[in-house]
Amino acid sequence: MRATTGWLADGPTARLRRTPLERRDLRPDDLAVRIDYCGVCHTDLHALRAHDSKAGQPLVPGHEFTGVVTEIGPAVTRFSAGDGVAVGNIVDSCGECSMCQAGQENFCHAFPTLTYGGTDRHDGSTTLGGYSREYVVREQFAYPLPPGLDPAAVAPLLCAGVTVWEPLQALGVGPSSRVAVAGLGGLGHLAVKMAVALGATTSVVSRSPDKAEDARRLGAHGLIVSTDPEQMAKARDRFDVVIDTISAPHDLGPYLKLVALDGTLSHLGHLGPVTVETIDLLVGRKKLSSAGSGGRPATAAMLDFCAENGIGADIELLPSAQVNEALDRLRRNDVRYRFVLDMSDLS
Amino acid sequence: MRATTGWLADGPTARLRRTPLERRDLRPDDLAVRIDYCGVCHTDLHALRAHDSKAGQPLVPGHEFTGVVTEIGPAVTRFSAGDGVAVGNIVDSCGECSMCQAGQENFCHAFPTLTYGGTDRHDGSTTLGGYSREYVVREQFAYPLPPGLDPAAVAPLLCAGVTVWEPLQALGVGPSSRVAVAGLGGLGHLAVKMAVALGATTSVVSRSPDKAEDARRLGAHGLIVSTDPEQMAKARDRFDVVIDTISAPHDLGPYLKLVALDGTLSHLGHLGPVTVETIDLLVGRKKLSSAGSGGRPATAAMLDFCAENGIGADIELLPSAQVNEALDRLRRNDVRYRFVLDMSDLS
Repeated sequence: MRATTGWLADGPTARLRRTPLERRDLRPDDLAVRIDYCGVCHTDLHALRAHDSKAGQPLVPGHEFTGVVTEIGPAVTRFSAGDGVAVGNIVDSCGECSMCQAGQENFCHAFPTLTYGGTDRHDGSTTLGGYSREYVVREQFAYPLPPGLDPAAVAPLLCAGVTVWEPLQALGVGPSSRVAVAGLGGLGHLAVKMAVALGATTSVVSRSPDKAEDARRLGAHGLIVSTDPEQMAKARDRFDVVIDTISAPHDLGPYLKLVALDGTLSHLGHLGPVTVETIDLLVGRKKLSSAGSGGRPATAAMLDFCAENGIGADIELLPSAQVNEALDRLRRNDVRYRFVLDMSDLS
Repeated sequence: MRATTGWLADGPTARLRRTPLERRDLRPDDLAVRIDYCGVCHTDLHALRAHDSKAGQPLVPGHEFTGVVTEIGPAVTRFSAGDGVAVGNIVDSCGECSMCQAGQENFCHAFPTLTYGGTDRHDGSTTLGGYSREYVVREQFAYPLPPGLDPAAVAPLLCAGVTVWEPLQALGVGPSSRVAVAGLGGLGHLAVKMAVALGATTSVVSRSPDKAEDARRLGAHGLIVSTDPEQMAKARDRFDVVIDTISAPHDLGPYLKLVALDGTLSHLGHLGPVTVETIDLLVGRKKLSSAGSGGRPATAAMLDFCAENGIGADIELLPSAQVNEALDRLRRNDVRYRFVLDMSDLS
């Protein structure tokens, strides 16, 4: 086994603590990655809240990180030691089902192996995430670090980025599209940047008029204040695609009303049951969809697109020793727009 | 006013009774229609159940009918006395909102005038439906009877037919599509006929294996028995479009599982809130939509398509005097596949 260091949870209320960790010895198709930067995702909060340390499974969060390859297995062909590398929230899948065959490993029928809290398909161990200094990953689930971008700002692209990229692509967003992004957080600010770079006329929908300046800075063409009934009424049926990134449970009705004839509301970032009034879908023949994470081809394409368009996340970089502060502030939505942990203090 | 005869409801539990009715005198753009055949729609049952005769609004159901033009107003250009004619569930709309401008009068922002139980835009009267011998309608909301089809079998196309046609068109169903139709009733059997005629590989999903022969006769390529977990599992992710015509409230989860990557479940024929598990949408990036009724261009295109492809509804024709028996049997789902009332006994 390989020795490293990381930030471990001892239960839902405890603070993460720095601790020695072990990584597996390299299999033939494995890379060892020195993690430099790891994003702090809402999923990490969910995982911590749900974590039962008494059940005996260790929890080290973190599933969007960048770093440098330090060692490769003998069957690795696409990476060499010293290469920049990025890893997202999936590190393996069955490879055989129709979804894997379609390049949608995120929808693997046998369930993809998650970067943390997953079960390794070979040795049955629980995967430990990127809040650490080293990760060992199959080459197939690692991506070359895109050139010309700040590696710290790239880390959030591997989860937040691909989560918004997939619906933008699947819904055919391009120069003739009218896109609204509801919620301007980690997901939302990347959705705005990408939709704008795809050429779409893009508006932000936010509870607060204070977001107008940020929206403009991110490239958006307008802001609709969701608490202003007049603005919402004026925006009725105006958007081919509405990307709803609001993480708290909320009524989808007002956002469906913004969708144009035959358009789609894609709601991201929270799980569980959703209820809609049939009439809100029926009138205008609107569609409701949901998205999360991405397959390997989409992740690679998203990184290429971001490199070409100079898109990284807007981040606040903190030493990894401040992980608990980052989590506390994320719980209060006090972040513009993504925390990234600098792992060099774990060396 | 013009004198005619029809079948009137005296409250939710009473049987319809034959009674004299009045129709308006013709406005310049009106047609008078002698109704020969009127379909019996599930909506009629809903309207009867909800009807409060004490509120003072008369209820005469019926919103899919065919007949012959008997008289025209001076501004009518597309019809002459003696022409065959068909009318659906909408008889007017604002004509000015974005939905009307897009030819989607069924989604009119000012609400379309319904064929019965609606409020006339000129005189404020309550519209009385097609369970009667005469109707007076604006030319713009009447359609030439398609040639070569049994006029009795055409009547259900005007509501059931366009309700399934709109999603098939909006979702781009064609020769390369894989379509499943859940529920084989008034809507479902027309969805199968149309999907097959559009060239799609079409399956029926039904609780009962007894529907296999009917499914085949309608042109379907297969039957999936929804109560057989093995058949449902085998059909997972297999259909680009699932048209769910099941009228009773039911769990959409099993039907979403049949939808292929980026495909759509379109659920028809019932209103109210629907709840779905986000994960059932998320895995496979599936979409949920809803449809009902159709705009004028879609209705006209649907009638052309049905004439070209010899598609009418499979009906059981009853004298209008048996309207109460037809409604009772429809309540029990005892119909293959649509009752049509022959109005000649009202002369």
